[in-house]
Amino acid sequence: MANVLIAGATGAMGQKAVDLVNSMANIELTAVLAPHLMSADREQYHLGKNVQVFNSLTDVDPSVADIWLDFTVPSAVYDNVKYALNNDMMPVVGTTGLTDKQETELIELSQQKQLGGLIAPNFGMSAVLLMKFAREAAKYFPDVEIIEMHHADKKDAPSGTALSTAKLIDQVRKSHESNPDETESLAGVRGGDYHGIKIHSVRLPGYIAHEQVLFGGAGEALTIRQDSFDRQSFMSGVKVALEKVGNLDHLVVGLEKIL
Amino acid sequence: MANVLIAGATGAMGQKAVDLVNSMANIELTAVLAPHLMSADREQYHLGKNVQVFNSLTDVDPSVADIWLDFTVPSAVYDNVKYALNNDMMPVVGTTGLTDKQETELIELSQQKQLGGLIAPNFGMSAVLLMKFAREAAKYFPDVEIIEMHHADKKDAPSGTALSTAKLIDQVRKSHESNPDETESLAGVRGGDYHGIKIHSVRLPGYIAHEQVLFGGAGEALTIRQDSFDRQSFMSGVKVALEKVGNLDHLVVGLEKIL
Amino acid sequence: MANVLIAGATGAMGQKAVDLVNSMANIELTAVLAPHLMSADREQYHLGKNVQVFNSLTDVDPSVADIWLDFTVPSAVYDNVKYALNNDMMPVVGTTGLTDKQETELIELSQQKQLGGLIAPNFGMSAVLLMKFAREAAKYFPDVEIIEMHHADKKDAPSGTALSTAKLIDQVRKSHESNPDETESLAGVRGGDYHGIKIHSVRLPGYIAHEQVLFGGAGEALTIRQDSFDRQSFMSGVKVALEKVGNLDHLVVGLEKIL
Amino acid sequence: MANVLIAGATGAMGQKAVDLVNSMANIELTAVLAPHLMSADREQYHLGKNVQVFNSLTDVDPSVADIWLDFTVPSAVYDNVKYALNNDMMPVVGTTGLTDKQETELIELSQQKQLGGLIAPNFGMSAVLLMKFAREAAKYFPDVEIIEMHHADKKDAPSGTALSTAKLIDQVRKSHESNPDETESLAGVRGGDYHGIKIHSVRLPGYIAHEQVLFGGAGEALTIRQDSFDRQSFMSGVKVALEKVGNLDHLVVGLEKIL
Repeated sequence: MANVLIAGATGAMGQKAVDLVNSMANIELTAVLAPHLMSADREQYHLGKNVQVFNSLTDVDPSVADIWLDFTVPSAVYDNVKYALNNDMMPVVGTTGLTDKQETELIELSQQKQLGGLIAPNFGMSAVLLMKFAREAAKYFPDVEIIEMHHADKKDAPSGTALSTAKLIDQVRKSHESNPDETESLAGVRGGDYHGIKIHSVRLPGYIAHEQVLFGGAGEALTIRQDSFDRQSFMSGVKVALEKVGNLDHLVVGLEKIL
Repeated sequence: MANVLIAGATGAMGQKAVDLVNSMANIELTAVLAPHLMSADREQYHLGKNVQVFNSLTDVDPSVADIWLDFTVPSAVYDNVKYALNNDMMPVVGTTGLTDKQETELIELSQQKQLGGLIAPNFGMSAVLLMKFAREAAKYFPDVEIIEMHHADKKDAPSGTALSTAKLIDQVRKSHESNPDETESLAGVRGGDYHGIKIHSVRLPGYIAHEQVLFGGAGEALTIRQDSFDRQSFMSGVKVALEKVGNLDHLVVGLEKIL
Repeated sequence: MANVLIAGATGAMGQKAVDLVNSMANIELTAVLAPHLMSADREQYHLGKNVQVFNSLTDVDPSVADIWLDFTVPSAVYDNVKYALNNDMMPVVGTTGLTDKQETELIELSQQKQLGGLIAPNFGMSAVLLMKFAREAAKYFPDVEIIEMHHADKKDAPSGTALSTAKLIDQVRKSHESNPDETESLAGVRGGDYHGIKIHSVRLPGYIAHEQVLFGGAGEALTIRQDSFDRQSFMSGVKVALEKVGNLDHLVVGLEKIL
Repeated sequence: MANVLIAGATGAMGQKAVDLVNSMANIELTAVLAPHLMSADREQYHLGKNVQVFNSLTDVDPSVADIWLDFTVPSAVYDNVKYALNNDMMPVVGTTGLTDKQETELIELSQQKQLGGLIAPNFGMSAVLLMKFAREAAKYFPDVEIIEMHHADKKDAPSGTALSTAKLIDQVRKSHESNPDETESLAGVRGGDYHGIKIHSVRLPGYIAHEQVLFGGAGEALTIRQDSFDRQSFMSGVKVALEKVGNLDHLVVGLEKIL
């Protein structure tokens, strides 16, 4: 039985995390950190009577939990995770915004403390498995392209997940020559190029968040696709993280590393 | 019952056309035009005893057929079709290579003669229907992107069918504003742009010839996809053309126009 | 400029319809019928000051609107539509529950009154276009199977849209022999059979409402797919119906008939 | 450098295997076993001057090769593999038809001899990876259905690969309750049922051999798809097997086990 503190418990993701932890048999929600939460509003946020409410980091009682589950904001996450590690809590972090330098520093701290933890830019199990499988398939199918599809409001392209997928593939695939005679009669039609891996970004209303990795080989094709319809999907990955973080002895980046 | 002459009967497509016509109940193969074919080789090319063999255009007996089915070469097709029309044969043309000027001239000739005919750059019914449906759907879904996928040996991009599809869509869709705030962190990742319609070309070994048209609207998506696995697929469209050409009174470009 | 009364304006679909009509330039919302709506609650339901509120059918002022847009309940729809027609309003009906007999009777009434109208079991444009295109493609591709995919909570199978699609295909495709030697080593694996058209129903959590129609022919395949992510998708079809109902001279069943 | 004997070298698959081995740098083709092959016909079958030709099993010189690559017929495979093992050759077997009893016996023999080997019902890397990934994903997504699509001439359903995939998934997924209230208004529409895993078989002309595994979870979906367009695809898996068989110390069943 592990005890959990949820930082950012009143936000959209934090609330889903509260509901998740409340539904788990082996994990107990013992505290939340939420700047403006008043004790009277507990019920509205699905917090039981025994859950301690802290409004600032400095108030947190370090003995209250084994796991620090963080769904806060970029400006708070570094201090939060450092505090957790320094007080022997295992951080599980869904908040983005850590710099590479901060990440390295926190990993080193976790190694000194021999404390497990997880930083995951994406907790959606379908996206995490897609990345894991794509990396594995690329060993056998060096010819690969990525198509990601998002709602029309997403302004940047490619998506972070598509780029992460390309990076993972690039780490493992054999040196690979693309077709030197290839021509484009319409600029950009062959997509963006990450180390020879073509990425295509589709932006259409109606769509939510989807990614396909297409592998081709002599006489055959393999396609891995994931669809995120709803943020609820993140919670399956958070559950896996809460269950497995106790087995780790340092802070790991990427849920796929612990599957 | 209509009689057909097949020009280019010994080529790969011509041979498939011979087999097709041989299998049709209401159409009879009465002649072929093939430069180097010797009468002794009829059997090898599936030609019956009654099929007349001509080795040059000037030898062709104009009364031998009602329909001129042409699977020859770019250098021959203009003279062939002109000869057919001048001799009251309805041309059905699968050969590419006519210039816009030649096409216009032949259409005018067909109108003077009040003779039906069809020029089809693509006889594959799945591709033809995809284009037809895409054009129709674009009236209701102005937000659309095209993804075409071909074998790695195809050097040019986008494919002719993808570009034709974009042109058809462009003719009908409402004026349409793309996202002005859109940014690419990897050049080309948003695809090629034809009048605001994004086209993405995938080139992978194993793949043959495939096209998808993706439409998105508030809360929904519509996708039309066609796969060409084999040139055999062209014959279904040739069959439709042979059956319908008699209803036309001039030369039409595009099989989708007569469906 | 047409005036619209919305029956069922406070329900989930009715509210979306209110927002739609409020956003249209050539259509004005002049009245609503909603049993329990109090005039004081107008603002909450996005109803302008000039919108008349009726709580029962007998109160409705027949001169208030040209179009009767109905998103009510099965028990009310027949009386509503009859009332609309008898009072020279053109009904646009998204409510299900009319029996075949009632439908026939209402169509006859509309013909006597020479009043246009539309009954649509599905206003999602992607589903409506899928059905239209599937019917058309089946003329050329008699070999077809349907796969529909819905969330795990949907208890019945196949979906209404899948069955409607099969019926439309069945009306047009050539007589068709299935493979008599076919065997199933696992009962049901070849799907449900509607007049020789195989239908497959997938039920999985995460999925929303999706349908694919797969056509196959010699050397090629054509696939039409629609995804409904959100009920918002219905409104695009309602918009088309409101714009086109004025051109009709009787009550039509199926949005695809007027596209 | 390993030496290979190919049994069944003149068959369709055997010929592809000859071409594969001829193209590999570290593997040499030293012999073939082919009942009716005459030495004069070597060239026709792409066999070099130094390749020994045997017409019957009893003639085979056991010192000629390290690896026995078998693409023969069900009636020959058992004797072949036994002979190979007894003569210290590592068998790589693409021939089907071994009974469970024969398979067990050959594995035991390989263990006594401490000889590696591989029996693979499917050498297509896309199919093999699909099965491997499906098994892994099922640990996190217990809700899964399988759709396989084959050409209309395939009489039996489901396909062997689809059933194998279901068996692999069944080994790992958590106990799983299907929807007890589920109803079918068309018998079979929910597919075939293998231990609660639904399988759907599509049979259409044009299609070749394709399989999809669909996973669903709260708010997301993961799909793995493979397409076999051509038997050429088997050779990528044979190549992997030839490269890795030397690392094994007994006969393994299933290419996915050694990836």
